[in-house]
This record gives sequence, C-alpha cells and structure tokens, in this order.
Amino acid sequence: MINREYKEMLSSKDVIFEIAGEARKRALRFGDDNIFNFSLGNPSVPAPEAVKQTFTRIIEETDPLELHSYSPAGGVPFVRSSIARDLNERYGSHYEGRHIFMTCGAAAALSHALRALTNPGDTVLTQAPCFPEYIPYVKGALCKLSMVPAETGSFQINLSAMEAMLTEDVAAVLLNSPNNPSGAVYSTETIKELSSLLQRKSEAYHHPIYLISDEPYRDIIFSHADSPYIANFYANTITCYSFSKSLSLPGERIGYVAVNPHAVDADGILEILPQVSRTTGHNGAPAILQRVVAELSGTTSDLSIYEDNSRLLYRALKEYGYSLVRPGGTFYMFPASPEPDDTAFCRRAMELNLMLVPGSSFGAPGFFRIAYCVPTERVTKSLPLFRELIENT
Amino acid sequence: MINREYKEMLSSKDVIFEIAGEARKRALRFGDDNIFNFSLGNPSVPAPEAVKQTFTRIIEETDPLELHSYSPAGGVPFVRSSIARDLNERYGSHYEGRHIFMTCGAAAALSHALRALTNPGDTVLTQAPCFPEYIPYVKGALCKLSMVPAETGSFQINLSAMEAMLTEDVAAVLLNSPNNPSGAVYSTETIKELSSLLQRKSEAYHHPIYLISDEPYRDIIFSHADSPYIANFYANTITCYSFSKSLSLPGERIGYVAVNPHAVDADGILEILPQVSRTTGHNGAPAILQRVVAELSGTTSDLSIYEDNSRLLYRALKEYGYSLVRPGGTFYMFPASPEPDDTAFCRRAMELNLMLVPGSSFGAPGFFRIAYCVPTERVTKSLPLFRELIENT
Repeated sequence: MINREYKEMLSSKDVIFEIAGEARKRALRFGDDNIFNFSLGNPSVPAPEAVKQTFTRIIEETDPLELHSYSPAGGVPFVRSSIARDLNERYGSHYEGRHIFMTCGAAAALSHALRALTNPGDTVLTQAPCFPEYIPYVKGALCKLSMVPAETGSFQINLSAMEAMLTEDVAAVLLNSPNNPSGAVYSTETIKELSSLLQRKSEAYHHPIYLISDEPYRDIIFSHADSPYIANFYANTITCYSFSKSLSLPGERIGYVAVNPHAVDADGILEILPQVSRTTGHNGAPAILQRVVAELSGTTSDLSIYEDNSRLLYRALKEYGYSLVRPGGTFYMFPASPEPDDTAFCRRAMELNLMLVPGSSFGAPGFFRIAYCVPTERVTKSLPLFRELIENT
Repeated sequence: MINREYKEMLSSKDVIFEIAGEARKRALRFGDDNIFNFSLGNPSVPAPEAVKQTFTRIIEETDPLELHSYSPAGGVPFVRSSIARDLNERYGSHYEGRHIFMTCGAAAALSHALRALTNPGDTVLTQAPCFPEYIPYVKGALCKLSMVPAETGSFQINLSAMEAMLTEDVAAVLLNSPNNPSGAVYSTETIKELSSLLQRKSEAYHHPIYLISDEPYRDIIFSHADSPYIANFYANTITCYSFSKSLSLPGERIGYVAVNPHAVDADGILEILPQVSRTTGHNGAPAILQRVVAELSGTTSDLSIYEDNSRLLYRALKEYGYSLVRPGGTFYMFPASPEPDDTAFCRRAMELNLMLVPGSSFGAPGFFRIAYCVPTERVTKSLPLFRELIENT
C-alpha cells in the first residue's frame, strides 16, 4: 500500500503551481502576449554572464576527478570558507567555513534547519503571510506549524500576537524577510523587538527558541528599505539562503544553512546537520554548483528591474484606489483585494488573463499576491486590467 | 533543544568515511604513494571527455533563463523522455517520460521510493551484505529495516531465509545488484525465484510487496556476468539509479526513480513522489545536471579498469589462500577475513597502510570489503601486503 499521508497531501496541492498551469493553458489558447502571468516567483532577468563564464572556466580548468568527486556532507571546504568570508565582509558576522552547510537550495536548507532544531511534536511558529510550502516543510520535520496572524497595516511582525502564541512547546520561529508574499523587509526596530521577545521567552522556558531566518530574497532589497542582517541581532539564528533569486538560478537548487557561531549549542547543530542529510537522502549539494556560487560571491543578476517594476506598480495601484503596503524588497506586492473574497477576485482577474494568487494561500485572506518578476513592458500593459478590476468591483 | 534522535545517530557514524579520514591522515604522514586506500567507492576513472563537452555546449547554446529555470518536480520533460527511451532500447522496458522521476542522486531516489511505498511502522527487508546507509534511509521513512542473513557461498539472495522473514508487515524489499559490498550480480535464476516468492507472498497477504531495486552499479558489469534487468521480471519494481559511478560524477548527485508502468498503482506512486519532495526539501534535481545526463544517455566513463583490477586481485587473492566469491560487477570484492574478527583484521591491514572496511559494517561479519576503484598499479603494489596479511594470520 502506498503512503497514505502523501496521498492525502494531494488534496492540498500547491495552488501557485496550479495557477501557473492555468496560465500556460491560456497562453496556448490566447497567445503569450495576451497573458499576464504574475503568479510565479521565477526570476525574469537572466543569470549574469559571469555564471556562464565561471561554469565554463571551472569545467575547462579543473581536473574532472577532483571537480566531480564526493564532497564532505557540508560541502567543499574552500566553498564554505569563501561564503563565510563573503558574509563576514558584508555583515560583520563571524562565520568560519564550518558554520556554512551547503544544500540543494532553500528547501533543503529549511528542511535541515527544521529537523535539526526541533524534536517531533514541537511547534514551529511563523508569521503570516508566509510561503505556503512551510506547511509540508514543517510537517516533514514531524512538527506543528502555527501561524501568527498578519499585521496587515505594515506586514511587519505582529509582535503582540506572536508573544501570546510563544508557548513553551515552540522550538523555533520561522521567518522570511524580505517576505514572500508581502515584499515587506523586517526593520531594525522590528528585529530588535523580536530579539528581546525571544530572549525573554527562552529564559522563561529554560530552553533556547531558535530563529530560522529564511532569506532567499536577501539580495533583492530596494533603495529606501532598512534591512538588518537578522543573525546579528539574535544569537540563536540559523540563516537559510538560496542563490535562486540573486543569481537567477532557480532550477539549480543551490543554497546553504549558516549557523550563527554564537548560537546555543552551535557545534551540536553543526554536528547533526549531516545526520539530517543521511535520513532525508540529501547527501550534499552538487559539487560543480558549489564551486560556481563560491566564485561568484557578491555577484548578482541585474536586479534593478524588480525595483523599477515595484515603483511602477505601486504608483499605479495607489492611483486606482488599491490599498497596499509599499514593498521593501523581493519581486512581490500584496495589495488588499477590492472585494472581500480574494479567491473570487483572483478568479475574476484570471478571466482577464491576469494571473494573481489569492492571499488565502499565504495565510492572509483578503489580499492577493502580484509576482512582478516580468519584463517592465508587461507590467505597463497590465495596468489597465488592474484599473478595470477595481472599477468593476 | 536540538534534535535528540539525530544526536544519537552520531554514535553510529559512517564507518567507511571514518576509515577514509584515517587514510587521509596517514597519507599526510607517510605520503600518498605509501597508502593503499581501498576504503571508498569513489570512481578512479575521470568523467568522459563528453561530459565536459556537453556541459560547455549546453551552457553556450541554451538561453540562461530557460536553462536555469524551475523544472517540474519530476524533472525537465525532455530529460525524462530521453531516459525512458534509453532504458526501453536497452532493456525492452515500457517506460514513458512520466515514469522517470529525476532526483539528486541515488540517496534521494531511495528516500523517495522508500517514503512513497511504505507507511510509518512498516518493515523493509534487505539482503545482507548491504550498503550501511540503508539503515538511516529506512529510519528516515519511519520504517524498520530487517536484514536477511548473507548467503556467503555465492552472495546471491538467501531465498529460504528471505521467505521466512517475509512477514505480513513487509511493505517493500530493498535490493542492490550489482551489489555493494560483495560485487555479486543477482542472476536471472535468482531474480526469477525472487519474483515468484514475492508474488506468492503478495497474494497471500493481499497487498503488493514492492521491490526497490537500487542499481547505481548497473553499468559496471563484467563480461562473464548474467545481469537481468530486474524490473522486467517483477512488475512491482521501482528502480533507483545514479550516474555517479557510470559517468564518474559522484559529487554531482544526479539520478532518478523509474516506476515500472506495470506496477500496482503505478500512477498513484507517480502522483505522490512530488509530495515526498515537498516534505523532505528535495524540490527537484539541478536543471543543468539533468540536461547533461540526458544528452549522455548510454555514454559511460572507461569502466574497463574495474574489470582489470577485479581479475588481478581475484587471481592473486585466490593464490594467497583467501576465500572469496568472484565479483560479477561494481568495483568491490568481499573476501572472507582470514581471522574470525574482521574488524581486528582491518585494523591489522591499516597498520600496513592498507585501508579496508570490515564486513560487519555491511551486516556480514567475517568478511572485508576491498574498493578497487584505484589505478591498476596501486592494486599491483598492494598485493604483497595482502599476502603478508594472510601469511601472518
């Protein structure tokens, strides 16, 4: 008998991928140019030319036996050191190579962090709105996910609600800043207050509450945003990163876990991360991809288009009468749905070939997500549709 | 509190990697040339030139947005079709692209197959000797692993012992042929008898017993060996493959699960494999590696050295008086330890700078594994040490 729990999961399929599927169908029927697919967080700018050059150079210059050989569970040693150095230069952190554990993308990074920092039955607390795949990730670690209701005025952390939900069974808080879907970047003030809250609660419960900081959008921050490096403000922070968005490599699944050297039992965490790999079938990030990203530390795709699109959309939507918080980063925006039922609103948008994702999918009904990682002329052309949608509400 | 179970796993660390670590230490002390490291299954022949060329061509010719974009959970569609076609041509199987699910190597393939085909608490049966990492793999699927004692006369399947152990709670049988560590290739006769046994038991218990066939060494088969394609003999076979050994890409972690279209509930299995990915943080094999292996279907490294080494070692060891079964494939050999305690024997070998792995690590005490994926001159130079070891027993 095949697995019952996975079978049950089929009924809660990934809404975003379903909408993207509908977009592909509509593109075939109406033509690509007539579909405004704002449903998927797939980078619209190509990987920088340096990616191509680095790949080619590594393949040309490295002995294939060395290049493609097994690496230790946490990654190729010089890759780990190089990433640690880059983080230290940028954020004044104190990582050594051994604090960086290379993974097959952010999903694997989160899977490792969640399993290492919890025990079965623990609660993991997250802040709505959040990436819907947090649900299976946490379920996979045999824990319960609780969601703090959104602070819809700012999409910062809802600290009072979080405080009430920080019960003794909470082993870890899982946060995502810059945030998918809201585009919010948690401010220094927010993070300082969060840190003091978590410290207080850790002391009260006599166990550390770890902060799993999911940061795949860390390099897509707009010029006006205040963007603290979270691990600098709370010692028990385990940071998860992916190069998917910054280098436009979403299909290559390359990322890492960075364990703050100042975290309680940091060495214990580092010791068990490879054990998580052994039970999940992870067994290391691909060697060639590790080398490519190590050599490209600090390089990104041309990410400026996301800020351009953000500005264009924000201004237009405000003008049309949408209520929305100005994003500080990512390539998402999360306006309030002009009609109370966000799913009905997104269905209405879909009839106009404008693909949006209902906020309900992110634990925040009454809103909708626009993924504006598309060419700017697509954003411009879509504006009359947004106007039509609110005018006809 | 960090995870207790993973912490406990530290006490049962991977023996093979520990011996390999000792080998590295000794290499620093005594010089590379004086260490005979036969402990690790790391291919000794480089990836074929075609790997380099294919990488370079794909990077040069593919639009980076297309190349590095998200692929569906099971992989890039043309990659899956290409692998299905190659298998069908070679083995007369009937896979379509949708029956191939791309994974980050064999470990991820096994992790998916095990989770999809079992429910928590089920038993998974395997045949000793076997790869020690089966223990954490099965534990990760929340199942119990039972090991059928080795048939030490041939290292084929111990069918009578397996029959007795095939109780109603066995959801799947996990087998590895060509076998690590014995080098045995299960013969057509063995597989036919296994198939009839599994069919009988499936009928008796009114549920299919799935066969998870772990085949990373499928392309390293020596000229004399009878090597059936197992899925052709038992419909409920799910085959796990990795390109690590055939293309000498162990560090790149690229492989697949092939679901036999004739298996009971094949479509159900295919449907839940992506759900396994969602909970384990797998989320797809790297896109560029998928494309590389698809274009290289049927290509391998020059694997002939493994058969040469095998012949050389087999003859010499026989001559010195070792008792051993002639391997039919892989790059392993599994002689009986000349002294009853295989760990003591391997320790004695280590003092001679000859790194071997005790059979106890593979569920078969009284034997030891030689990984002869090394240059032939290393094998030649090691022979006097093997002679000395048995003469001094």
